Amino acid sequence: MQRVAVVGASGYTGVELLRLLSRHPATQLVSVTSRQYAGQSVGEVFPSLQGSLDLVFEDVDPARLADRADLVFTAVPHQAAMEMIPALLEAGCRVVDLSADFRIRSQAVYEEWYQAHTAPELLAEAVYGLPELFRKEIPAARLIANPGCYPTSVALALAPLLEGRLIDPATIIVDSKSGTSGAGRAAKVDSLYCEVNEGFKAYGLPRHRHTPEIEQTLGQLAGRDVTISFTPHLLPVNRGILSTCYASLGAPLTLDALHSLYRKRYAGETFVRVLQQGRLPNISQVRGSNFCDIGLALDERTGRVVVLAAIDNLVKGAAGQAVQNMNLMLALPETTGLLIPPVFP
Amino acid sequence: MQRVAVVGASGYTGVELLRLLSRHPATQLVSVTSRQYAGQSVGEVFPSLQGSLDLVFEDVDPARLADRADLVFTAVPHQAAMEMIPALLEAGCRVVDLSADFRIRSQAVYEEWYQAHTAPELLAEAVYGLPELFRKEIPAARLIANPGCYPTSVALALAPLLEGRLIDPATIIVDSKSGTSGAGRAAKVDSLYCEVNEGFKAYGLPRHRHTPEIEQTLGQLAGRDVTISFTPHLLPVNRGILSTCYASLGAPLTLDALHSLYRKRYAGETFVRVLQQGRLPNISQVRGSNFCDIGLALDERTGRVVVLAAIDNLVKGAAGQAVQNMNLMLALPETTGLLIPPVFP
Amino acid sequence: MQRVAVVGASGYTGVELLRLLSRHPATQLVSVTSRQYAGQSVGEVFPSLQGSLDLVFEDVDPARLADRADLVFTAVPHQAAMEMIPALLEAGCRVVDLSADFRIRSQAVYEEWYQAHTAPELLAEAVYGLPELFRKEIPAARLIANPGCYPTSVALALAPLLEGRLIDPATIIVDSKSGTSGAGRAAKVDSLYCEVNEGFKAYGLPRHRHTPEIEQTLGQLAGRDVTISFTPHLLPVNRGILSTCYASLGAPLTLDALHSLYRKRYAGETFVRVLQQGRLPNISQVRGSNFCDIGLALDERTGRVVVLAAIDNLVKGAAGQAVQNMNLMLALPETTGLLIPPVFP
Amino acid sequence: MQRVAVVGASGYTGVELLRLLSRHPATQLVSVTSRQYAGQSVGEVFPSLQGSLDLVFEDVDPARLADRADLVFTAVPHQAAMEMIPALLEAGCRVVDLSADFRIRSQAVYEEWYQAHTAPELLAEAVYGLPELFRKEIPAARLIANPGCYPTSVALALAPLLEGRLIDPATIIVDSKSGTSGAGRAAKVDSLYCEVNEGFKAYGLPRHRHTPEIEQTLGQLAGRDVTISFTPHLLPVNRGILSTCYASLGAPLTLDALHSLYRKRYAGETFVRVLQQGRLPNISQVRGSNFCDIGLALDERTGRVVVLAAIDNLVKGAAGQAVQNMNLMLALPETTGLLIPPVFP
Repeated sequence: MQRVAVVGASGYTGVELLRLLSRHPATQLVSVTSRQYAGQSVGEVFPSLQGSLDLVFEDVDPARLADRADLVFTAVPHQAAMEMIPALLEAGCRVVDLSADFRIRSQAVYEEWYQAHTAPELLAEAVYGLPELFRKEIPAARLIANPGCYPTSVALALAPLLEGRLIDPATIIVDSKSGTSGAGRAAKVDSLYCEVNEGFKAYGLPRHRHTPEIEQTLGQLAGRDVTISFTPHLLPVNRGILSTCYASLGAPLTLDALHSLYRKRYAGETFVRVLQQGRLPNISQVRGSNFCDIGLALDERTGRVVVLAAIDNLVKGAAGQAVQNMNLMLALPETTGLLIPPVFP
Repeated sequence: MQRVAVVGASGYTGVELLRLLSRHPATQLVSVTSRQYAGQSVGEVFPSLQGSLDLVFEDVDPARLADRADLVFTAVPHQAAMEMIPALLEAGCRVVDLSADFRIRSQAVYEEWYQAHTAPELLAEAVYGLPELFRKEIPAARLIANPGCYPTSVALALAPLLEGRLIDPATIIVDSKSGTSGAGRAAKVDSLYCEVNEGFKAYGLPRHRHTPEIEQTLGQLAGRDVTISFTPHLLPVNRGILSTCYASLGAPLTLDALHSLYRKRYAGETFVRVLQQGRLPNISQVRGSNFCDIGLALDERTGRVVVLAAIDNLVKGAAGQAVQNMNLMLALPETTGLLIPPVFP
Repeated sequence: MQRVAVVGASGYTGVELLRLLSRHPATQLVSVTSRQYAGQSVGEVFPSLQGSLDLVFEDVDPARLADRADLVFTAVPHQAAMEMIPALLEAGCRVVDLSADFRIRSQAVYEEWYQAHTAPELLAEAVYGLPELFRKEIPAARLIANPGCYPTSVALALAPLLEGRLIDPATIIVDSKSGTSGAGRAAKVDSLYCEVNEGFKAYGLPRHRHTPEIEQTLGQLAGRDVTISFTPHLLPVNRGILSTCYASLGAPLTLDALHSLYRKRYAGETFVRVLQQGRLPNISQVRGSNFCDIGLALDERTGRVVVLAAIDNLVKGAAGQAVQNMNLMLALPETTGLLIPPVFP
Repeated sequence: MQRVAVVGASGYTGVELLRLLSRHPATQLVSVTSRQYAGQSVGEVFPSLQGSLDLVFEDVDPARLADRADLVFTAVPHQAAMEMIPALLEAGCRVVDLSADFRIRSQAVYEEWYQAHTAPELLAEAVYGLPELFRKEIPAARLIANPGCYPTSVALALAPLLEGRLIDPATIIVDSKSGTSGAGRAAKVDSLYCEVNEGFKAYGLPRHRHTPEIEQTLGQLAGRDVTISFTPHLLPVNRGILSTCYASLGAPLTLDALHSLYRKRYAGETFVRVLQQGRLPNISQVRGSNFCDIGLALDERTGRVVVLAAIDNLVKGAAGQAVQNMNLMLALPETTGLLIPPVFP
């Protein structure tokens, strides 16, 4: 049984990782760390996990971790991740990093959208862990950059069209909506119940930090530079992302052909569910699961295709995908511990 | 004091009209009708209005209505409206129709998106009642087609750009999100609490019925035919529409210039609030009010402008705009009874 | 036109007071203060009020306030209120205090449940401003202690039974549920959207601070000491309190008799709506209004009466009641500016 | 591998049963029936289960079912259950019935609160399936009456006190609050999103149908007749019940002693989590799981104990408990397929 640890398990992504790992049949969770909660039991901090996980939060200590765990998930904010990961790697751990620090391949682009990078030497080595699109390099990777939530939904939505050179990349517009857990568990007025409930707004315009990550992936799929319009919105729900993606078709295509394309592309992909023609995805139907549901529409009047992708931002958009990457790294069946049906209603 | 009546006051738009009219200082509500609730008091059917409105629902009888009311609001479904309105007009009533039946000027277009029209002779006479854009014809109108909720938000969002010929109309994409009251009060599984709550989805793709209404208005503003992509989504909130509108600029423009344009266009318009630069609208800030909040963003990387408009779908998107039209028709100050600050939180 | 000011208008009670005062026809709001927001316009801090209230937040300065306002609302936390109010009174202002500082008549009881009292000399003078129960002393008062939200709902629910000596006060159990705006606008993890949404819990057991205030009022109505069990719960809604109150009847009573009693007791009280027999109150039907809806049930099997009262915690439970008190103090009709129908849905 | 079937799997309890059975490692789900959906695949009707359950809804046919399944869950409304179950038993199936039809032991009491009983001969045989309280008879039972959601929460909350004769049963008051999935998936105006959202109300007063079931269980635990006050309320959440139970202690007790009592009573019960002293349960912490969380408070001023119990109404309150009963009936470990950590947030 392989040993794993979670660093920074105090936010919503952290508790979701613990939920998934607590029931993972082929690994043992040996340590969870959190500066804020060191000394408290997991059940005290997250009553939902009482009885499911019998661990006490420890203070962060990369050196000690390496002795005890073969693989470490880093679920700390960007910048904190890049400061900690070199030591973990050096000590012999493999790392699945859930922050943004190693997702952008170009140091210059990273520094334009974030801040100075303190471990740029690892950027080339880090593998972008979106298995359905880039599975090959994951098993041997030492450092996985676990994709962002918005980028996961958009990449899976548009990959078949870009790989097939069927749309004009310059026309891509992505209108995304995310549940509030994406804003994290920090105490901010903007995230208060009464500020979010019965509300809806866009934010981060015109330059949300997920934009370069999305563009990097779409560019790779398209084989050319891609610049998109991306507008994130805040939904009054706990979990879920729906990305509505628009693009102009290069040449006319039937809805049937479109569906065939997607079904073929994602045949054998357990976690991507291409919906029947006429069906559109709803975030409520993927809640708590690692599924990405994809729906398609064709507007013949405008020549545009509309692709809609729904994921649970904490699962396929974060913790679930991290476990999927771990499974590949540890040579386990990719779906181990992840065949969890969604919780509806 | 002018006498008004409401026909079909049993849904969410109906109860909202009653709320607004119950406090309107310059008109008297003399009759409310509903087949379903005839004989019951308003307070029994809508406990919220107990103590505010002392009326009993009557059965619908156009002839009797005309004796008692100078102006009638028809808040019945499309098709029912066109069957009833000719008789009301003939009997001498003026009508504000909240259905879709007289919004589309072309009978052919109406019949393509809805069904056969039984009163096409009135299509030319009906005035599209969006005061901020088409105020001039409203005061003298006998029949007002009160605009749809989505179309109101989109028209106010894009009018300054189209009037100024600043965007390419062929590039317009509208991604709208509406609260659930827009789906009406009919007992349908799709509208049940557990189906909507913690969910989010698009619907009506690729041909939602509000599309031709939006295109008609945008076309009028642009002075040419306009075909758009329009995607409505269902939000887990009671009230509110946010429309995120994308278009490519014809020529580069600064955000300052964009803001000046909007401020100038809507100067003097009490119900349109152009937000400060850097601010984006939130449906929670217009709840219960007749305001339309507009925010602007410019994406220099793509040359696209993003205009976001938030309204309360039941107020500026329906009952409030209907009262605004009534005020104009009755030569009252346009804001009479509508200067209601939003309810937040 | 009388001049009023609001001190500490930065929380949810504050913005609600501003909403109500902005439309109050017989007073002029001359100043709003907030340490946190001094220098910013009301519309910047509360976008909902843009266009409805053209004021800039000032720093707090009791002396200057007294020159400009006849009556001041203090909407600051307890302890801060008692430090500021003596100076305001001395400077000649009349005060409606929305904090808990002057609600408890006994200094000892106050200090047992809160902390040391620094202005105990005012406790005897302060008038508990629940007009439906204690209207007489309000008009002449210099200092009004505006009741708490839970206590308002409970007092109105049980007053007719206690005044009529119809229940055994020792058997009173109050199970209350409040919307999240009652927790204030401070940035706390416990009030985050994801912590509250889809959740429900009791809190503050077994000694919530509203207990002595409730007991004081019930005791006054009963003419004897009353000790109750009180359990507050947190509801995932923005606004509203529902209090479910249980008590054993001293002697058998029919539901008809019970209804007569309540209708008679509250005849002429605009803001108390005793529901028809068989109807139970819903917080959604009082939202945004100053109404208190009361429903009654009788359990013959146990000899207990159940009284349910619904209010909007920010209106009848805070800002609306404060305005109602102001109206009485300024010799205005008591309902001035408060005849606002609830916003449903 | 034992074969099981679900009859009437078209509501929220049905889809929850399918979710749990789809991942149950020791049984095989061979048939799901639904009059309404016969011929459609499970994934079409419940998109959440696409990819997790590859079955087509069949029409109901008890005789055919018996050939194929050893154990049948009946998830149909009361009355429909009693009409179908005798045939299933006769054909040799064992049955876990999720309706109310066999929960009340006395035909007279059943008929007082429901309607005529058509299979009274089975009332004596049916075993009330609340394992933590009545485990012994379950393994050998042919017919399990799966407890109601409210009754489960109340019985687990009060059992230790009643078994220990520590409270006066005549003083029990139960104030319960349930999520909206408890109202079922039927298309009713009262269950519409806009009717429930931002609302809260009591219902079913003074005689909700779960009352006799609760009283029967409490009476059995107390060894005497028990009559309670029970008030159910409707919460604007999908899932969860919180029951706040009040009772007067027979003799003084410390909170420590109370906690010891509960810990001891539920030691070894995987699905009952007695919270640490000072902690109160939140429905959000049991969502999607079979846990019942219990919190305790003692009010020395009134001599009352307050016990709060939180469950997921669809899991421990319905489908999860049904699977727990099935495990016992099939001689499987009781927790098989049910060690699912709650989904938070």
